[in-house]
Amino acid sequence: MTEPLFDKVAIVGLGLIGSSLARGIKKHGLATTVTGFDGSADVRARSRDLGFCDSIAETVDEAVTGAQLVILAVPVGAMAAAAQSVAPHLADGAIVTDVGSVKAAVVRQVADALPDHAAFVPGHPVAGTEHSGPEAVFADLFDGRWCVVTPCARSTDASVKKVVALWTALGSTVETMTPEHHDIVLAITSHIPHLIAYNIVGTAADLEDVTQSEVIKFSAGAFRDFTRIAASDPVMWRDVFLNNKEAVLEVLGRFSEDLAALQRMIRWDDGQSLQGHFARTRAIRRSIIDAGQDTADADFGRPHGHDD
Amino acid sequence: MTEPLFDKVAIVGLGLIGSSLARGIKKHGLATTVTGFDGSADVRARSRDLGFCDSIAETVDEAVTGAQLVILAVPVGAMAAAAQSVAPHLADGAIVTDVGSVKAAVVRQVADALPDHAAFVPGHPVAGTEHSGPEAVFADLFDGRWCVVTPCARSTDASVKKVVALWTALGSTVETMTPEHHDIVLAITSHIPHLIAYNIVGTAADLEDVTQSEVIKFSAGAFRDFTRIAASDPVMWRDVFLNNKEAVLEVLGRFSEDLAALQRMIRWDDGQSLQGHFARTRAIRRSIIDAGQDTADADFGRPHGHDD
Repeated sequence: MTEPLFDKVAIVGLGLIGSSLARGIKKHGLATTVTGFDGSADVRARSRDLGFCDSIAETVDEAVTGAQLVILAVPVGAMAAAAQSVAPHLADGAIVTDVGSVKAAVVRQVADALPDHAAFVPGHPVAGTEHSGPEAVFADLFDGRWCVVTPCARSTDASVKKVVALWTALGSTVETMTPEHHDIVLAITSHIPHLIAYNIVGTAADLEDVTQSEVIKFSAGAFRDFTRIAASDPVMWRDVFLNNKEAVLEVLGRFSEDLAALQRMIRWDDGQSLQGHFARTRAIRRSIIDAGQDTADADFGRPHGHDD
Repeated sequence: MTEPLFDKVAIVGLGLIGSSLARGIKKHGLATTVTGFDGSADVRARSRDLGFCDSIAETVDEAVTGAQLVILAVPVGAMAAAAQSVAPHLADGAIVTDVGSVKAAVVRQVADALPDHAAFVPGHPVAGTEHSGPEAVFADLFDGRWCVVTPCARSTDASVKKVVALWTALGSTVETMTPEHHDIVLAITSHIPHLIAYNIVGTAADLEDVTQSEVIKFSAGAFRDFTRIAASDPVMWRDVFLNNKEAVLEVLGRFSEDLAALQRMIRWDDGQSLQGHFARTRAIRRSIIDAGQDTADADFGRPHGHDD
């Protein structure tokens, strides 16, 4: 237990990330009080039962009033509305942060909505599973993971320091970069992989000659890894693609070009080029294991001990 | 322990599949003797040290002579040469089987090479990890997995029964289909996913604006799952694509068409269609979990207890 960083923290949006944040903040004693709010009455009721916040507010007013830190943990497409709803209730000197997977669009949408007496520090914890909703909560979701903080014109030095301190206390390593750079890095490491996974699962379902039962039976040969990714929250991902359009289309164009080159090697029996391409990717895998972002074991280095 | 199915079994090729087969056959007492052979002197020496066979032969002649079952566990591209090398030494009534990830091309290559007094039963255990070589060996690799057997003109009823009995005793569930159907099913569930994984890892490495260190740091957002797949054996996969060209190009064409449709939805802000596509793939994931081919846990339901 450390000295609390904040007196009151308000979390708006109680999905996987919001609820795991609440639990992590309580576990590490980073706030005196954590108040949660969600636009859905059903999620509020379930969150009350799960008990991961000190209290679940019935209105956003009640949640935000008096909070020194307000965390927006809603899908990227709901970020503007969330910022507008918290704005009138923000205390003097309050810090607003978010956890959206896209940063430039969020900065545009949120910064304008906030009053001058509040600071905004955009953030993105690079963590998550394919599970969504408050039942998926676990306090250690951010432990040993990276968090990107992308200061903008509405961030002050002091507010950035406080948000970095929060993520560090939750066990994350914080990297600072511009919102635009964040968006291209995440396009290749996360957004395009998700789009491709969603796509191949759809292609499989549409094959006339192969039954769904066959796809399922023989999924051990890599397909199941794609289905796991393609089980992620549809609304969250719709919003990511619509709000990171430029970077996604750029990286997708390169991906398709590269895939056409591989396709051509197969059509023209160019085994040497194929093998050369495949051998090159092994080195990258090794670097990821060495960097501690995964293990060589077949469990992908994911945390196993959920505490719910 | 059951009654041995075979007196002597010869395994040609001591990579992950061949060595795991040897260990599984010994563990379940399915043969009186298991003799291994590999074209590489280094692999033979390492296999002798690991001791998963009763003996490691110095020549293919020595390995195959007197065997009732000969298992070809070499990359698909080496299958024709392996069949030619075992052919002169096959006992009367010997059964030859293989474990290649492609079946129609293997049937063409192997069937012609074998003498009339031997039967050929093509097989494909749908199991494996990204690790290769005899050190990756584990006896339970096939337990709870599917194995496809694709009888051909050179298979007899009795030989098919024996090979099915072998896989069943190793814990696999056997499905029988034509070699051609196998190749299209595996193109979508395994071959195209591998090609895509190899491709995106290459695309990432070539981005000028994103450093390799950034790709590695932020790989938790799905990319690392692709790198695991893209760490698979380059020679094995080169051979798969060259030998299953027709089905791979057909499925790849559909994949690219579907991806272009998603790309267009993003470009034209068609959030409703995107969300509809993403929601549909969740149901397929659920079916895979229900079918016992994966678990809802984050470890992908992979076996954890390697016994090496």
